[in-house]
Amino acid sequence: MTTALVPGSFDPPTNGHVDVVGRCADAFDEVIVAVVANPSKAPMFSVDDRVSMLEDLFDGLPGVRVERFEGLLVDFAAEHQANVIVKGLRAVADYEYELQMAQMNDHLTGVTTMFLPTAPQHSYISSSLVKEVARLGGAIDALVPPAVATAMKEL
Amino acid sequence: MTTALVPGSFDPPTNGHVDVVGRCADAFDEVIVAVVANPSKAPMFSVDDRVSMLEDLFDGLPGVRVERFEGLLVDFAAEHQANVIVKGLRAVADYEYELQMAQMNDHLTGVTTMFLPTAPQHSYISSSLVKEVARLGGAIDALVPPAVATAMKEL
Amino acid sequence: MTTALVPGSFDPPTNGHVDVVGRCADAFDEVIVAVVANPSKAPMFSVDDRVSMLEDLFDGLPGVRVERFEGLLVDFAAEHQANVIVKGLRAVADYEYELQMAQMNDHLTGVTTMFLPTAPQHSYISSSLVKEVARLGGAIDALVPPAVATAMKEL
Amino acid sequence: MTTALVPGSFDPPTNGHVDVVGRCADAFDEVIVAVVANPSKAPMFSVDDRVSMLEDLFDGLPGVRVERFEGLLVDFAAEHQANVIVKGLRAVADYEYELQMAQMNDHLTGVTTMFLPTAPQHSYISSSLVKEVARLGGAIDALVPPAVATAMKEL
Amino acid sequence: MTTALVPGSFDPPTNGHVDVVGRCADAFDEVIVAVVANPSKAPMFSVDDRVSMLEDLFDGLPGVRVERFEGLLVDFAAEHQANVIVKGLRAVADYEYELQMAQMNDHLTGVTTMFLPTAPQHSYISSSLVKEVARLGGAIDALVPPAVATAMKEL
Amino acid sequence: MTTALVPGSFDPPTNGHVDVVGRCADAFDEVIVAVVANPSKAPMFSVDDRVSMLEDLFDGLPGVRVERFEGLLVDFAAEHQANVIVKGLRAVADYEYELQMAQMNDHLTGVTTMFLPTAPQHSYISSSLVKEVARLGGAIDALVPPAVATAMKEL
Repeated sequence: MTTALVPGSFDPPTNGHVDVVGRCADAFDEVIVAVVANPSKAPMFSVDDRVSMLEDLFDGLPGVRVERFEGLLVDFAAEHQANVIVKGLRAVADYEYELQMAQMNDHLTGVTTMFLPTAPQHSYISSSLVKEVARLGGAIDALVPPAVATAMKEL
Repeated sequence: MTTALVPGSFDPPTNGHVDVVGRCADAFDEVIVAVVANPSKAPMFSVDDRVSMLEDLFDGLPGVRVERFEGLLVDFAAEHQANVIVKGLRAVADYEYELQMAQMNDHLTGVTTMFLPTAPQHSYISSSLVKEVARLGGAIDALVPPAVATAMKEL
Repeated sequence: MTTALVPGSFDPPTNGHVDVVGRCADAFDEVIVAVVANPSKAPMFSVDDRVSMLEDLFDGLPGVRVERFEGLLVDFAAEHQANVIVKGLRAVADYEYELQMAQMNDHLTGVTTMFLPTAPQHSYISSSLVKEVARLGGAIDALVPPAVATAMKEL
Repeated sequence: MTTALVPGSFDPPTNGHVDVVGRCADAFDEVIVAVVANPSKAPMFSVDDRVSMLEDLFDGLPGVRVERFEGLLVDFAAEHQANVIVKGLRAVADYEYELQMAQMNDHLTGVTTMFLPTAPQHSYISSSLVKEVARLGGAIDALVPPAVATAMKEL
Repeated sequence: MTTALVPGSFDPPTNGHVDVVGRCADAFDEVIVAVVANPSKAPMFSVDDRVSMLEDLFDGLPGVRVERFEGLLVDFAAEHQANVIVKGLRAVADYEYELQMAQMNDHLTGVTTMFLPTAPQHSYISSSLVKEVARLGGAIDALVPPAVATAMKEL
Repeated sequence: MTTALVPGSFDPPTNGHVDVVGRCADAFDEVIVAVVANPSKAPMFSVDDRVSMLEDLFDGLPGVRVERFEGLLVDFAAEHQANVIVKGLRAVADYEYELQMAQMNDHLTGVTTMFLPTAPQHSYISSSLVKEVARLGGAIDALVPPAVATAMKEL
């Protein structure tokens, strides 16, 4: 059985995240969506809210489950016997930072990281830009799942 | 069961290729190494020789088999029911070209491509640079598997 | 009156080219689509065929006309009193090469070049990749205008 | 009539900004320099001071006017019937971030963004680096217009 | 006599830094390791501790000495009659920022900057990532010199 | 004594090359300009002509001499006891290719490569673009030294 770990802040989950997790569900037997409990910046949603939103989003997608994690990602991957870490990639510039993280993680425990480029129509959708658009009063309905858009409006 | 397709010219196979295929063998149930029959340039080794060398290299690695292919990669992937195409990535500049190919392939049949960065110690080993070093009389023994080094010296 | 020059090989014209020229027609009073008569590689279509296809594509788009050119682009721009050269950009890697050309052209005559990024859904459509897909028997109908697809099939 | 919007923080305006706006004045009938009222960081100059400095700099340049804006850039662009947003680009790395913004803005209202590379001799002049050099006591006289250099020394 | 300046925060010094300074010691008669006294963020180690650690690390390496500096790097370079500034480079993305700094420094005093790429096995080792790994409880012993690892554990 | 090797095709030598060699002459005791005898493409000037032009250009610059080389650069560097190879860098995209070469050369003999970014005003001047401009009848007098411009016109 093959298990992939998809880590992220998911603050908030976007249509790009949904696409990445769906593709992983097609390519691996099991997918663990790993939600960082303590991102470096103050999150828009608590880790419990983010886990809950993601569980609703992937409810019914076979083999996908959502977990929160703290500490080193490589320890979490080892604990859950993940074969591979999968990171969605939007821009080329992201690649360099993620490559450094991937090589550090490989150094620490030998875990392999694969990169999954987002579909072209999601390439400009990052969580931080979605928050910025919402803050300035722009429409986010085509950028995030409906439940997330509703939750953002209720904040 | 999950199947990954690892396409390439493998002219010649390098230590970087061996690393990528080995990591795929850890992450997927089945790995098909797909050797391009007709690369754009005149190859150093015939497709039969490349298939044969790769079969020897991965002999005994469970779930890995080697195939030659012609035509569109996406048709070959569909025919073999591959869940995902995996491409090794050395440099950031490679990423952009491969991203374009990945998006085109997704457009054509919906197939997903994942990228696997090479380990740092293999980051400078490309088939073309190996050939260039060999042509100028440099030592290639630490760059390609022993059987490949032997075959290159016998050419 | 503002005039923009949109140079290229257009071998063949793609949906990306159509998008770029259409956006220029919205932003400038006059748009000259400048078709390179002698691209470095043997073209799929003659310059006359490319000019003719482009004229059909942009027929009815106000302010747009198609011209062939040879020699230095900056001389052609000066001759036609173009205020600015506009280049469509797909990938980040393209940007560097085009930037060098833009700075050289500015050095030669002081002409300004602007870059217009292609829409995400066209980001993977280059003329050369379209030709490669067609050569291997893939479907190109969603990549180029219908008349171009027909012309490619008749070759 | 064609109208271009040139948005930015201009904190402070540099010789690179002057070059970009001057080139836009040559390429479009009307140019609106749009000054972000509330940049993310505490600005060196208030938005009123920045607007005032820019008005002095472009006084006499036909078709150029300076405006402050708040909220979404795309709403401001629609309100002023701008045909195109023009962003100056210094480095390749800037391109990726600006491309994401351009695609988001196109998604929101369909507005087109064009990129104008700075001249080579201005490629290393960013507002933030100018502030850093000034803070450490370096000479900024060849980096910003004389009036800006004077205003920075008076702070 | 040729003198190279190797500036940095060295917070903490890594195996990558040791490699860069060692290579400079082979290439120049004299190497000055210049430690930024006041980095923009709160440092893990005081400048005195960093100077002291570096002096211990390079003790016995002929021609290498360690100095602290404040203010403009170009003034420090002029004061010490350095022929060239040498910056280690890990990622391509670093190159763009460092290029901008190099061109600004050349503008200010005409000083030349050279870039020294880190060895592949050090390419993922940055001071900030080392600190992050240590903070989360990961092993840093293969990333920094033994004395630095000890000092980090004692904090 | 420190010796730097500056390799290249120099077909033709440009103002960018002159700047790079001049900066190396300031930073090292001895500079060897190493002219590739057999570049991959048919050269504009023979290796003897290129060596001769470079000797004239650097005549009187203390410590600089010009040599032709064939075979592996690392063997040539070892033979001439060069401490370091210096490569001029124009664009970010060049960096990636040159980094791969540098790491391969380090692998082969342990030689160190440093990169020297060209001055902004030379960033768009490559030998190949100079040849292209000349072929199309553009002025090259501000791009190459006068003697080179004369030699190109006499071809």
